[in-house]
Amino acid sequence: MMYAAIMGYGTIGSGVAQILEESRERIANGAGQEIALKYVLDLRDFPDSPVADRIVHDFQVIESDEQVKLVVETMGGLNPAYPFVKACLNAGKHVVTSNKALVAAHGTELLQIARDKGVNFFFEASVGGGIPIIRTLYRCLRGEEIQEITGILNGTTNYILTKMDREGASFDEVLKEAQDLGYAERNPEADVEGHDTCRKIAILTAMVTGKEVNYEDIYTEGITKITDMDFRYAKEMGASVKLLGSSRRKGGEVCARVAPVMIGKDHPLYAVSGVYNGILVKSDMLGVSMYYGSGAGKLPTASAVVADMIEAAQNEQMNIPIGWGEQRQKVADIKTAECRYFVRIAGTFKEKADLIRRTFGEVRTFVLEGADEFAILTRKMSESEYEKQAAVLDDECRKSGGEGIRQRLRAELED
Amino acid sequence: MMYAAIMGYGTIGSGVAQILEESRERIANGAGQEIALKYVLDLRDFPDSPVADRIVHDFQVIESDEQVKLVVETMGGLNPAYPFVKACLNAGKHVVTSNKALVAAHGTELLQIARDKGVNFFFEASVGGGIPIIRTLYRCLRGEEIQEITGILNGTTNYILTKMDREGASFDEVLKEAQDLGYAERNPEADVEGHDTCRKIAILTAMVTGKEVNYEDIYTEGITKITDMDFRYAKEMGASVKLLGSSRRKGGEVCARVAPVMIGKDHPLYAVSGVYNGILVKSDMLGVSMYYGSGAGKLPTASAVVADMIEAAQNEQMNIPIGWGEQRQKVADIKTAECRYFVRIAGTFKEKADLIRRTFGEVRTFVLEGADEFAILTRKMSESEYEKQAAVLDDECRKSGGEGIRQRLRAELED
Repeated sequence: MMYAAIMGYGTIGSGVAQILEESRERIANGAGQEIALKYVLDLRDFPDSPVADRIVHDFQVIESDEQVKLVVETMGGLNPAYPFVKACLNAGKHVVTSNKALVAAHGTELLQIARDKGVNFFFEASVGGGIPIIRTLYRCLRGEEIQEITGILNGTTNYILTKMDREGASFDEVLKEAQDLGYAERNPEADVEGHDTCRKIAILTAMVTGKEVNYEDIYTEGITKITDMDFRYAKEMGASVKLLGSSRRKGGEVCARVAPVMIGKDHPLYAVSGVYNGILVKSDMLGVSMYYGSGAGKLPTASAVVADMIEAAQNEQMNIPIGWGEQRQKVADIKTAECRYFVRIAGTFKEKADLIRRTFGEVRTFVLEGADEFAILTRKMSESEYEKQAAVLDDECRKSGGEGIRQRLRAELED
Repeated sequence: MMYAAIMGYGTIGSGVAQILEESRERIANGAGQEIALKYVLDLRDFPDSPVADRIVHDFQVIESDEQVKLVVETMGGLNPAYPFVKACLNAGKHVVTSNKALVAAHGTELLQIARDKGVNFFFEASVGGGIPIIRTLYRCLRGEEIQEITGILNGTTNYILTKMDREGASFDEVLKEAQDLGYAERNPEADVEGHDTCRKIAILTAMVTGKEVNYEDIYTEGITKITDMDFRYAKEMGASVKLLGSSRRKGGEVCARVAPVMIGKDHPLYAVSGVYNGILVKSDMLGVSMYYGSGAGKLPTASAVVADMIEAAQNEQMNIPIGWGEQRQKVADIKTAECRYFVRIAGTFKEKADLIRRTFGEVRTFVLEGADEFAILTRKMSESEYEKQAAVLDDECRKSGGEGIRQRLRAELED
């Protein structure tokens, strides 16, 4: 019998309690021992809930109870999640968290404490909700050198982009609808500006490289500037726009970024729509593999927490090698990253053909009926080269009294 | 240091040796100890290979060497793989295999011996090549009740069907081409008749139910009768034909089958093309998840073997709970399984409208320009009901001197 506590009885925490209760026997079989929920820490009382008799308001009760060997953190945020988790690990308790902000900001230190204390710090639910991507990286792809990991890691933005794609709606319309449905927060910044995806790709990059990744080093661009016009061109091109978090090894560095990217129908992440997440891994032996499922939601996320609890209970006496060390991973300057660019330009291609040839060389062009603009797809080039040529183009347009570039999106498209 | 032996230096066995050599350090980090290859058992010599000095021809050398704690079986087939693996487990050695025939036929017994001896019998590479589906089932979805598992589990047939779909070619043409390219065996029966998929879905079903599944209980239909006409209709319907192995829980029974199935663009397995495999899991908490990657090939499969070796080395002193017990899982009679049917019928719908209404009720109809036939998509019904109505329809067509049903395929399509 292993005694556990849950810190934070919100959506995910209550989901964990529910699964522990409903799947008691299956969990005991997997864990090799029963897992009994002894405390639920929350500021609130939940008199009508099944855990009413186990609610405590004082963290010390959990920290000082030596019977409690396993603590689940589903509070979110850094304070008090960080000091509480640290104290639990220091007290020799296993910790399982769903908190990506905590793992991205303090993972290095918490993993080291877990190693020192011979316990486990697991965080499967912090990335990809119920998709078992963390465990796949440390259990299944152990013999692999992973060259690239790219994911649709945020369900809210993927829902918005999918709706814009399918219905031709504007960003603002769909965001409002998503908020009304509860798919997006009233303050949606963390999702739509890409910050959530940034923390998740930072965690995945650290898993892959074995080194600490500072999420602030990762170039992050959100989806607020994506318009229905972009999707009209995308349709024309047999493509769609997805918010991707990606990182690629390049020598000793990694090129990492969060940005909306135009991808084609043959891309394995193209079919990942709505609130689903998908994660693509490219590695030396296995090649391309992809993992798809519910990236959020009460029970999918809670299920990932429970899988971690089972693994902790299976390995009560042993720290499983997972995560990364204290060495810092160098993230390459985004200006050196290479891709193609989809660029929308005011006016007609005919009047600007020379200028475009001088700046971007040979390009593919796209025209929408009735639009006062056209679009080009450049060859692959570095961000700094793109910026240089785009500045020249914009400048010359302005000089001749007109408008220049209206939009630029990164594109991963073959010819 | 853990000493290992490989039995069978064919495609996969030599891939395993290659990865052990090339990724030595990464593997040692993951395993917590170095894995050293001591013997390679094969009837042949490989004087120019990197393992020339470790080739042995006599199994006794491996069996009786107490230093060897980990044996990889990549011979394929049942004889001598079965007695050799059994002897290794009985000698207290961990065994990792890529051999689906062995696992499907003798998994129950071999898993039990491993438990009794406190060692591990792992077989990640036996299903889905490099896709980590077995480990996902026993590590990641431990708290889940899995209701359905459906997969494209055979790369050869998926390659053939993808080519037929995209190029409008006939089965025989594409099979010949696949044989010339080495994607299909000279004797392709195990693949194209579905036997390979059958063993794999039997293993997955046993993993999910925790009970032994006799693969001979699973209804199996191959792809040899699929024609270019089927794909012309599929295109019309926004669908494609895939060879699916699937099993669904239904009370205490499972409905399992291997058959070509018409699926639509919104099906998560629709985009799995060419030699790739994909496996869809539906479970109570996580909902739908999908795992995609190289289902075959030297290095992807060898990589899955190596991941198992790492897990065995990590758990040298401990049997990890995996697999199934000796109780037999009841497989439901295929006649009770329900789905929709795509049926091609000679003649015109107009002349047969009454007859079709009397047999299948309301149906969707499809007509190809210039064809002397039409197709219908029935409502969902049991196999036995379908057979009864199809017999009536065929009978009446023949009575009036004509031809009746030309093709029937199962369909998983929404209206």
